[in-house]
Amino acid sequence: MSTTTPNGRSDVTVIGLGLMGSALARAFLRAGHRTTVWNRSPAKARPLVTEGAVLAGSARDAVAASPLLVVCVRDPDAVREVLEPVAGELAGRALANLTSGSSEQARALAGWTAGHGADYLDGAIMMTPPGIGAPDTLILYGGPRGAFDVHEPVLRALGGATTHLATDPAVPSLYDSALLGLMWSSLTGFLHALALVGTEGVTATEFLPFATGWLRAVGSFMPGIAQQVDAGAYPGEEATLETQLPPARHLVHESELRGVDATLPRFTRDLIERAVDRGHAGDSYARLIEQLRAP
Amino acid sequence: MSTTTPNGRSDVTVIGLGLMGSALARAFLRAGHRTTVWNRSPAKARPLVTEGAVLAGSARDAVAASPLLVVCVRDPDAVREVLEPVAGELAGRALANLTSGSSEQARALAGWTAGHGADYLDGAIMMTPPGIGAPDTLILYGGPRGAFDVHEPVLRALGGATTHLATDPAVPSLYDSALLGLMWSSLTGFLHALALVGTEGVTATEFLPFATGWLRAVGSFMPGIAQQVDAGAYPGEEATLETQLPPARHLVHESELRGVDATLPRFTRDLIERAVDRGHAGDSYARLIEQLRAP
Ligand SMILES: NC(=O)c1ccc[n+]([C@@H]2O[C@H](COP(=O)([O-])OP(=O)(O)OC[C@H]3O[C@@H](n4cnc5c(N)ncnc54)[C@H](OP(=O)(O)O)[C@@H]3O)[C@@H](O)[C@H]2O)c1
Ligand SMILES: NC(=O)c1ccc[n+]([C@@H]2O[C@H](COP(=O)([O-])OP(=O)(O)OC[C@H]3O[C@@H](n4cnc5c(N)ncnc54)[C@H](OP(=O)(O)O)[C@@H]3O)[C@@H](O)[C@H]2O)c1
Repeated sequence: MSTTTPNGRSDVTVIGLGLMGSALARAFLRAGHRTTVWNRSPAKARPLVTEGAVLAGSARDAVAASPLLVVCVRDPDAVREVLEPVAGELAGRALANLTSGSSEQARALAGWTAGHGADYLDGAIMMTPPGIGAPDTLILYGGPRGAFDVHEPVLRALGGATTHLATDPAVPSLYDSALLGLMWSSLTGFLHALALVGTEGVTATEFLPFATGWLRAVGSFMPGIAQQVDAGAYPGEEATLETQLPPARHLVHESELRGVDATLPRFTRDLIERAVDRGHAGDSYARLIEQLRAP
Repeated sequence: MSTTTPNGRSDVTVIGLGLMGSALARAFLRAGHRTTVWNRSPAKARPLVTEGAVLAGSARDAVAASPLLVVCVRDPDAVREVLEPVAGELAGRALANLTSGSSEQARALAGWTAGHGADYLDGAIMMTPPGIGAPDTLILYGGPRGAFDVHEPVLRALGGATTHLATDPAVPSLYDSALLGLMWSSLTGFLHALALVGTEGVTATEFLPFATGWLRAVGSFMPGIAQQVDAGAYPGEEATLETQLPPARHLVHESELRGVDATLPRFTRDLIERAVDRGHAGDSYARLIEQLRAP
């Protein structure tokens, strides 16, 4: 499954071997790609070398080894710190930057990389390390379509749901922020629920199947919400904001009563209360997007 | 599939025919149970009567018609308003109250019902009306196990995942609050994501598959979190709080930049920041439960 490597000794180089970078290198190796690796502190490369990776002696050698460079370090500043001293080696290669950053940072790196004659793809990994390489793992790319198409067969080893979103390299960062926001709010809601039932001695393990089953139900409400948001009309056909206000107040009350942080419940209650006050009592939860858009 | 009805003309009575009550009555009818219905404003009963329900002439007749009374009205005060004038009819029956309320309200209603010689089951419906009657629909009950066992064959028509949680009638309300909190925070996170990508002209329909796929991934993180919460140890084996801090800051920044309410992102960022400040940089997101427990 190895690709041709006209200008290097390996198919792909992975720079940055933290929790995520190591998982990326491992997925390339598993897919049969010749993989060069490099990390600032060399110790992290050792297990990968025993698994078949080639350890580059320097960042310069790492860049020179492959036509496709995958970089996954702490943040965009670290990307610059590693690549600036070896920028002369970039010409003719493609840089797939899988480091999380803002959309402005993605645009800046894209400009810098193009200035050195390399293609730039900005990628957002929507998965934790154990899921890297799985068939439904989503990795979102932005950047030139041609460069994506050339390297997509190798990049696909990282996730079966590898997707080119836009030629604008800033778009994956925005999706990343949006999706991470969804993750954090869901997980904080989960932790809040665990804290609440924990006050009655219910363990997280006991509560887990209720939460995961319920999260599937919550996912099933999303298509209806999306349809209403696009239509700009929010009829409460299944559940109204008026009906959800008393339970939202109970959640605040139960939290306060049991000494659990009520910031998140209060935020929910206030959003619903404000919508009801503004005459939207009969509308669905989707109506609340209008308050998020215009705080 | 009809059950015997020694002390009534029908198997089950549904009081309250709003969005949810109508769905409950319809599920009983679909399952072949003889169903009596009553609603404060009679118009809502009409479609159900054409589907085979018997319309009671009064709340008193509704109560007298069946051994099992299912009540689903706006809030616990409305339950009292309907049942207090006809409390003399309750003896020997079972009241399954599927109206949302707080755990204190559940305890109060349980006491009141027992005082009138009836069994009380408090139920929490974890579904919207279209899902009533589906095999995986979760309905949680608290109250005497014996009464649940007697009426479970009929109640199961409302949801295949009908579950007796505890003899304490207050427990379902607590689970309900906890699970609704998870729903609201997830859906607010979803609406926030839609508002964010919407600023780049991405429609909700376009973004939907990314969000629903990602929510499945988020659900897959929950077992690991539950295990860490029960263990009281939160090693950042897959992703650390330190790594999540820059993306959390980007989310705040992207939101502010695009005029989207940043309250929820700021709450997330502050939780992570505080944990990092307290020396938990290498821990996982599960560590944040300790801040929610002790605000
Ligand atoms: N873990 C996840 O679940 C996940 C998911 C999606 C996206 N991501 C993103 O992936 C990136 C890496 O995350 P991670 O979980 O692998 O973090 P990590 O385990 O903390 O690894 C950080 C990596 O960055 C390197 N690094 C930091 N500062 C550097 C510098 N100034 N110069 C060169 N190298 C530097 C570190 O090298 P040393 O070993 O020398 O310190 C290490 O290899 C982050 O942007 C993160 O947001 C992670
Ligand atoms: N919809 C959902 O997705 C959902 C999910 C889970 C739980 N629930 C819970 O189910 C309950 C009902 O919700 P819903 O969505 O069906 O609400 P709804 O459509 O607004 O219906 C409210 C019902 O309560 C009745 N009612 C209100 N005040 C009353 C009073 N003082 N005396 C007698 N009847 C009164 C109404 O009668 P009139 O027709 O005469 O006004 C109507 O039948 C709520 O506790 C809700 O939290 C709903």
